[in-house]
Amino acid sequence: MSLPVTAKVPFGGDYNPEQWPEDVWKQDHRLFDSARIDLVTIGVFDWALVQPAEGVYDFSLLDRIVERAAAEGRGICLATGTGAHPAWLAKAYPEVTRTDFEGRKRRFGQRHNSCPSSPVFRRLSVELARRVARRYADTPAVVAWHVGNEYGGACYCDLCAAGFRAWLRHRYGTLDDLNAAWYTTFWSHTFTDWEQIEPPSALTEHWRGPDHTAFQGITLDYLRFSSDAMLANFLDEKTAIRESSPSLPVTTNFMGMYRPIDYHRWAAHLDFASWDNYPPDDESAARMALTHDLMRGLKDGQPFWLMEQSPGVTACRDVNPLKRPGLMRLWSWQAVAHGADAVLFFQLRASRGASEKYHGAVIGHAGRSDTRVFREVAELGAELDRLGPASLGARTPARVALLFDWDSWWALEISDGPSRLVRYQQVVLAYHRALWDAGVDLDVVAVTADLSGYDVVVAPALHMLKGDLPQRLEAVAARGGSVLTTYLSGRVDENDQAFLMDVPGPLGQLMGVRIDEWDARGPEVVNPVRLGGGADQVDVEARLLFELVIPQGAQVVGTYQADFYAGTPAVTRNSFGAGEGWYVAAGLDQAGVSWVVRQVLARHDVLGPYPDTPDLESAVRVAPDGSRLLFLLNHRAEPIEVTAPTSGVDLLTGDRALTGSALRLPAYGVVVLREDG
Amino acid sequence: MSLPVTAKVPFGGDYNPEQWPEDVWKQDHRLFDSARIDLVTIGVFDWALVQPAEGVYDFSLLDRIVERAAAEGRGICLATGTGAHPAWLAKAYPEVTRTDFEGRKRRFGQRHNSCPSSPVFRRLSVELARRVARRYADTPAVVAWHVGNEYGGACYCDLCAAGFRAWLRHRYGTLDDLNAAWYTTFWSHTFTDWEQIEPPSALTEHWRGPDHTAFQGITLDYLRFSSDAMLANFLDEKTAIRESSPSLPVTTNFMGMYRPIDYHRWAAHLDFASWDNYPPDDESAARMALTHDLMRGLKDGQPFWLMEQSPGVTACRDVNPLKRPGLMRLWSWQAVAHGADAVLFFQLRASRGASEKYHGAVIGHAGRSDTRVFREVAELGAELDRLGPASLGARTPARVALLFDWDSWWALEISDGPSRLVRYQQVVLAYHRALWDAGVDLDVVAVTADLSGYDVVVAPALHMLKGDLPQRLEAVAARGGSVLTTYLSGRVDENDQAFLMDVPGPLGQLMGVRIDEWDARGPEVVNPVRLGGGADQVDVEARLLFELVIPQGAQVVGTYQADFYAGTPAVTRNSFGAGEGWYVAAGLDQAGVSWVVRQVLARHDVLGPYPDTPDLESAVRVAPDGSRLLFLLNHRAEPIEVTAPTSGVDLLTGDRALTGSALRLPAYGVVVLREDG
Amino acid sequence: MSLPVTAKVPFGGDYNPEQWPEDVWKQDHRLFDSARIDLVTIGVFDWALVQPAEGVYDFSLLDRIVERAAAEGRGICLATGTGAHPAWLAKAYPEVTRTDFEGRKRRFGQRHNSCPSSPVFRRLSVELARRVARRYADTPAVVAWHVGNEYGGACYCDLCAAGFRAWLRHRYGTLDDLNAAWYTTFWSHTFTDWEQIEPPSALTEHWRGPDHTAFQGITLDYLRFSSDAMLANFLDEKTAIRESSPSLPVTTNFMGMYRPIDYHRWAAHLDFASWDNYPPDDESAARMALTHDLMRGLKDGQPFWLMEQSPGVTACRDVNPLKRPGLMRLWSWQAVAHGADAVLFFQLRASRGASEKYHGAVIGHAGRSDTRVFREVAELGAELDRLGPASLGARTPARVALLFDWDSWWALEISDGPSRLVRYQQVVLAYHRALWDAGVDLDVVAVTADLSGYDVVVAPALHMLKGDLPQRLEAVAARGGSVLTTYLSGRVDENDQAFLMDVPGPLGQLMGVRIDEWDARGPEVVNPVRLGGGADQVDVEARLLFELVIPQGAQVVGTYQADFYAGTPAVTRNSFGAGEGWYVAAGLDQAGVSWVVRQVLARHDVLGPYPDTPDLESAVRVAPDGSRLLFLLNHRAEPIEVTAPTSGVDLLTGDRALTGSALRLPAYGVVVLREDG
Repeated sequence: MSLPVTAKVPFGGDYNPEQWPEDVWKQDHRLFDSARIDLVTIGVFDWALVQPAEGVYDFSLLDRIVERAAAEGRGICLATGTGAHPAWLAKAYPEVTRTDFEGRKRRFGQRHNSCPSSPVFRRLSVELARRVARRYADTPAVVAWHVGNEYGGACYCDLCAAGFRAWLRHRYGTLDDLNAAWYTTFWSHTFTDWEQIEPPSALTEHWRGPDHTAFQGITLDYLRFSSDAMLANFLDEKTAIRESSPSLPVTTNFMGMYRPIDYHRWAAHLDFASWDNYPPDDESAARMALTHDLMRGLKDGQPFWLMEQSPGVTACRDVNPLKRPGLMRLWSWQAVAHGADAVLFFQLRASRGASEKYHGAVIGHAGRSDTRVFREVAELGAELDRLGPASLGARTPARVALLFDWDSWWALEISDGPSRLVRYQQVVLAYHRALWDAGVDLDVVAVTADLSGYDVVVAPALHMLKGDLPQRLEAVAARGGSVLTTYLSGRVDENDQAFLMDVPGPLGQLMGVRIDEWDARGPEVVNPVRLGGGADQVDVEARLLFELVIPQGAQVVGTYQADFYAGTPAVTRNSFGAGEGWYVAAGLDQAGVSWVVRQVLARHDVLGPYPDTPDLESAVRVAPDGSRLLFLLNHRAEPIEVTAPTSGVDLLTGDRALTGSALRLPAYGVVVLREDG
Repeated sequence: MSLPVTAKVPFGGDYNPEQWPEDVWKQDHRLFDSARIDLVTIGVFDWALVQPAEGVYDFSLLDRIVERAAAEGRGICLATGTGAHPAWLAKAYPEVTRTDFEGRKRRFGQRHNSCPSSPVFRRLSVELARRVARRYADTPAVVAWHVGNEYGGACYCDLCAAGFRAWLRHRYGTLDDLNAAWYTTFWSHTFTDWEQIEPPSALTEHWRGPDHTAFQGITLDYLRFSSDAMLANFLDEKTAIRESSPSLPVTTNFMGMYRPIDYHRWAAHLDFASWDNYPPDDESAARMALTHDLMRGLKDGQPFWLMEQSPGVTACRDVNPLKRPGLMRLWSWQAVAHGADAVLFFQLRASRGASEKYHGAVIGHAGRSDTRVFREVAELGAELDRLGPASLGARTPARVALLFDWDSWWALEISDGPSRLVRYQQVVLAYHRALWDAGVDLDVVAVTADLSGYDVVVAPALHMLKGDLPQRLEAVAARGGSVLTTYLSGRVDENDQAFLMDVPGPLGQLMGVRIDEWDARGPEVVNPVRLGGGADQVDVEARLLFELVIPQGAQVVGTYQADFYAGTPAVTRNSFGAGEGWYVAAGLDQAGVSWVVRQVLARHDVLGPYPDTPDLESAVRVAPDGSRLLFLLNHRAEPIEVTAPTSGVDLLTGDRALTGSALRLPAYGVVVLREDG
Repeated sequence: MSLPVTAKVPFGGDYNPEQWPEDVWKQDHRLFDSARIDLVTIGVFDWALVQPAEGVYDFSLLDRIVERAAAEGRGICLATGTGAHPAWLAKAYPEVTRTDFEGRKRRFGQRHNSCPSSPVFRRLSVELARRVARRYADTPAVVAWHVGNEYGGACYCDLCAAGFRAWLRHRYGTLDDLNAAWYTTFWSHTFTDWEQIEPPSALTEHWRGPDHTAFQGITLDYLRFSSDAMLANFLDEKTAIRESSPSLPVTTNFMGMYRPIDYHRWAAHLDFASWDNYPPDDESAARMALTHDLMRGLKDGQPFWLMEQSPGVTACRDVNPLKRPGLMRLWSWQAVAHGADAVLFFQLRASRGASEKYHGAVIGHAGRSDTRVFREVAELGAELDRLGPASLGARTPARVALLFDWDSWWALEISDGPSRLVRYQQVVLAYHRALWDAGVDLDVVAVTADLSGYDVVVAPALHMLKGDLPQRLEAVAARGGSVLTTYLSGRVDENDQAFLMDVPGPLGQLMGVRIDEWDARGPEVVNPVRLGGGADQVDVEARLLFELVIPQGAQVVGTYQADFYAGTPAVTRNSFGAGEGWYVAAGLDQAGVSWVVRQVLARHDVLGPYPDTPDLESAVRVAPDGSRLLFLLNHRAEPIEVTAPTSGVDLLTGDRALTGSALRLPAYGVVVLREDG
């Protein structure tokens, strides 16, 4: 089971005709035609519509919606409708609503509101999925199943407490093992009966919110349990779908770097990944690239679907800026460049009421096709038509891996000490940014991924080391590769217990250093770091965290310039086998991070064609037929002129480029060069 | 029923002799005499005193207080005592305490603590009001009834939930209509039984507090319901009062621009309006003027009472600055200038204990009459004596209306998108400030007000359009008037559903524009706007919100100067009938707003005598006998010299002024000129 | 009963071998030997270990721990183990967990988690203490009992409500007296049955957190009750200990300036004081000195134990900076200089897991002795060995007293008005800083302390005046002493009721002023104050609070320079008997405070030897044998050269100094000069 079968990159998005009289549907489809929209996502929130009461199912309206879309020739991504439960269910069975972190029992409201452990919710959501699948499995227009919607949050009710205890029994077997893992001798926490265990919340282990916990081990396990509990909901529905639909691919829409859910724990269970891209601002090109790569990495490089993006504004933020002209197109092509095999919007027609009425839509409240947004959507539709199947199933030929680890994210950010100001994402983003600026094709992978195919592995803030990861990282270096890691790596095992050895724990041999102590300071404190020497010497700034390094064989590459530890190492390089281990001990600024990353990459031929042209992104995909597609994306509001790095045809214009010939990308311009074979 | 009958502007305020031994009362009255205090408000918080237990009423102390005040010749504004319920009531009937937005059931404490839907509270508060009125209705000193105190807040208990459902049944009749109004197809929210409906709170539709809701329609209706539920409490008591007091006027003290209560829904039910003026700082002269006008507008221009102000400091703020010398007098006269027919303080004698012990009082803890505050109070008392009945019942001859609409306030601020930074009050304040600077006599009125008497109608951020308002605004312009509105106007109908037409919805014809899209940005982003042309051209700044305008007949008055929409309209003027519709599409700074407002006013002869003298406020009142009182208020800490705009007598000094003669107002000085007839 | 008997300053700290296999214990003791660690605190959190179930006690592991420590020759500070209750107890008896300020019933988690009013908790904690004491009372190595741990927080459950009512009955006797004390006539709060009284919380009298209350009197009494309720827990255990251990001293570890607990109410019940010193940053030398003096003042100047400090970093802060090299030593000696007769760390070996795994420890996760931290610890151990018994039992010969009053702290900060920005600690710190800079040996004492031995009494922000304190302050001045107090002093009586007289109330005669009114402003508003005259004249800044002073005999020392009260007094000096009363009416900056304090001190010979050498701290202790120890502490990161103020021997080096000879203190250097007799 893999990606949905489509003839080209599907284009369209969420569509809620149930909110409108049927005469509007007709206008919709005419506008869809003019924008070349060929896929609609239907039914994400239709539980109350399809099941208006317990035991009563009414598919009449959904039938008409599906029939109409099919008749119009559009593909359908069909949702099971469990993104929100209906009011009657919450009233009849209060257990289906969640209890929040503060211990407050919720009543009916909002969405994503179901307790994942509720037997009633599980029974009825499964039954709904079963019936939807049974009814539409044989509709040819349906190309994929969409389960739930943006799984997330957490519940702390007694049903979840019971679920947590069962999950713990399965994980630990005995209370002795659990007590050891959680280090409960500390603060007299020894559990002598499973029933004594409570979800870690504002009522128990936490203060100042979800990141401040007395027992990191308990909180970490509850994060894992919560992720698994929602995964069980997904699997419940998927299993029910499979009863009548043995072969259509199943997905759910992810949210990129979303902390509460460990998507790596989920990935194997999805037929294909999909995600919703709502960047916080105009300046997030690198961040989006990282997230696309993360989503692609979930399924070992298999393309994913861009399930949602806004064609214009968002509504949920305090300030909702407009996507400037051209950005929606540019970012859509960025998604394709990084592995998206679908480009979909939320939403096709704007709601009249409720909280998303001001969220951007392909069709606005006035129903016009002469808006700027509609014109840009239609132009993109035409371009995707022109592209045709060229990119479908294409893979990224990455030789650089960036490790991304939810466990390290959680462990680092729920830790007491050394610094609440060090945020996992920020560290990862800085190292990714350096790679992105260099035009490196890279995979963002789990710590369990096979690393044998990579020349370079970058592992920022790899706080937790699990299983044989240290050995696999050593193997990368041993065979000539480079491994880069940073401060706050190699600190704890999978139970968040400190390694009883020098920091960075099992990475010490590879890195050739030991960390004697570490200093944390507020953002106003800078320690200058001098990198390199001679002509290459550069002075950068370090902030927030400063580890004091005692080399154990490593070569010093950068040194602190201030404080009592001035002159001691801040960056080191260690020869290990045929390769190298690099350690960055301080919170370097972006210039410092980029300098180090370029040094690491220098031994490997992995730079993109324009490593010194800021804001000109490049990305390569290799199609199943072996053809290479080179995507060039100009993120500047001004044109860029470069020379073509290779000969090929721009699939968007049909223009040919010759190696070394001038290539001009207008502001926010895109080139998709199929390289000559 | 109308204003209390008084021989002059009543002067005095809240008085709590029940907190003191009777020998203190004697000192109080001697000090009242020396300050010419002739009215006391009594009994606002005396429920526990008068009804010490269920079924037990004891008026003995209140009798002595009333008798003493009457004997001393002072008028009495007598409260029903329901501003706070007693401890025994909360203990005996837990239902009377509120459940807060977070879902927490309150226990006894604070004040304004009663659930408005509690049958027990309603029964016992009414009984108290009935008995108070019965006992004192024939006391000649009593001139008015004061019901409750500063109604506000909200309750989310199950009794309120039931009340809300009954209110909804009355409003919508059927669940189908309710589902349509609330747009419940969205997020599977369809209600199939009235009992499924929950108050919108932190447990249901809200996150991040009262302004973030998944369903604006539900939250909006709960705001309306809450306002109505407390109005019912007021009406309960008023009805009980009327049983024995058929003719004494009844009021309750409002709080100006207080968001939780829609005073326009209440206004018809009060015999006269009154309010408590606690400006946040020294810089709020215009804001106070606006609020006085709003309060006067509640009863179609009938004078109101200034029920409370502090003679010195407040206590409830984080920082409680002193009113500088002269300000209390100046602001008291400002109230009179805008329609106040009473000038009252909270409080006459300072409490020794509890949370208001540091709140300013006419008589402080040491009981002195030689404090600065007491001296200023006594001087004002003498001035009001000198004024006599001259201003009683006088009206403001306004030809400009500023629309103020609680529904638009609520809808705008509970909306997801486009910007949480745009605050209704701030927009209204900016447009009011421009009018105030121009010395315009204006009414602040509800959107249901009769607009036929106005030359100019200013409607900032008129987010919601209800009923025939668009037609009435068009009528203003049709007959030669001017209508000004701004960005974020004309967006939603009374159910907060977007109009299915171009923005600004039903105002589009009047304004001659359509808004294609809009951009929101943080406060650090400025788009310069060029207004006017030729010699009149001026460059100002716009922030926060930028609507992109496509003129549909309107003339462009101002254009954006930056970003991709540079050169497109930011301000437009549209000819409509004999008049004009003005549209301001961006968040202009005060200079820009003032420039536009002066342009709008230019066609109408409505400016005050000193439109170019900043901080010199003017206001006119026309007494029932036709005499015109011109109030001049110098808000500067320095003197101002101008020429008299008219001939007349300064009622405070007896000095005559001749048109064109020099008029000198000292720092914070006041002139009340009775114009020669 | 007094301090534990030791042969020298005990050195060591918290030790949790129960977290480790026994083979680690052996390494620990070898390392302890090399660092000259001679005291371990054991069993602070061992309830679950010692009592694994109700009725089951198992001392086997604790026996081995104690035996091992004793066999190694180390003293033991033995805890009763009630710092946290075990999970089985919370599950079996939910009453033992607390209900928080928000009204949320806690479940098992964290530590310091027991309801102080729970009969079950009281019964079982006492039984545990009884058994621990019975078992180990005759172990010679045990030198002191450590009850609980860092008592704090508060509980708002129904058991506490009942306890509060009982406490109130005891305090007030009748409801009439309670109603009078709480001023309940205000806002109809009269209580007619004890059962109507609720703990003041977010559900009752509070909004915006614990500092905003409608009834200061209620909140104040709940703070007192909470402090007493936890004191009762301490006394419960102490009494149980005394059954088998009649003579070993008992303590609990305090937290310095910790607002929730009034340590002065506790002090008489401890045999000796001890506290945990975790300064927030590197800049808190004066603050630590103040806190040491406060702790020493608890027991009338008797030395205390420094029970905890970190040898390196903390973990609980957002940012946890490293103690720079030398600071741990310097601050340890500062503790000794101010009266510490023990220097102990938390912790001797770092935990592997849970929330303190990154808290600094003498022995880190790698178990090394060649870390910087271990080396510095070992060097300090050697120095303390060298010092021997010289400082044991020594007293500070203070002639200056600084008053510190929890009631004033509470009353000031829970007050509505005049300013939430004035914080008690900040005011106290500023005045202390001035004294500390001057090198004054001072006592920090309760307002009930005997003041007859002091020449100068400094009482900043003495908001509440209780008992005969005004008379005792007058007596200080009458006999020639000086009394200094500030704005916001003399405002309320012990029930937080304003004095019915001029501010500063009963201090008015001593100060010779009356305060007519006061102004509060934000931190951006400065009023310059001119101090002194002629050559001594200096201009400083005042902020936040400005009282307007009318002298009643006092001489004006400083005047405001701006605003309408420019030229009026800001600082005054009043002759009273043979002495003086000083009043500072405004929030002077540190320069202003220091200027005033130096003026006050000028009449008294109390300055230290280096009043004009910033960062060079001096402190004197007089040993029981009459020898004077002069501690000199260089808080600079650079050396300081001065001349010796006296002849003597440096006990750390054996070097002799002669009066007037050069004395060089290296960066962070320490000299302990035993003055020649």
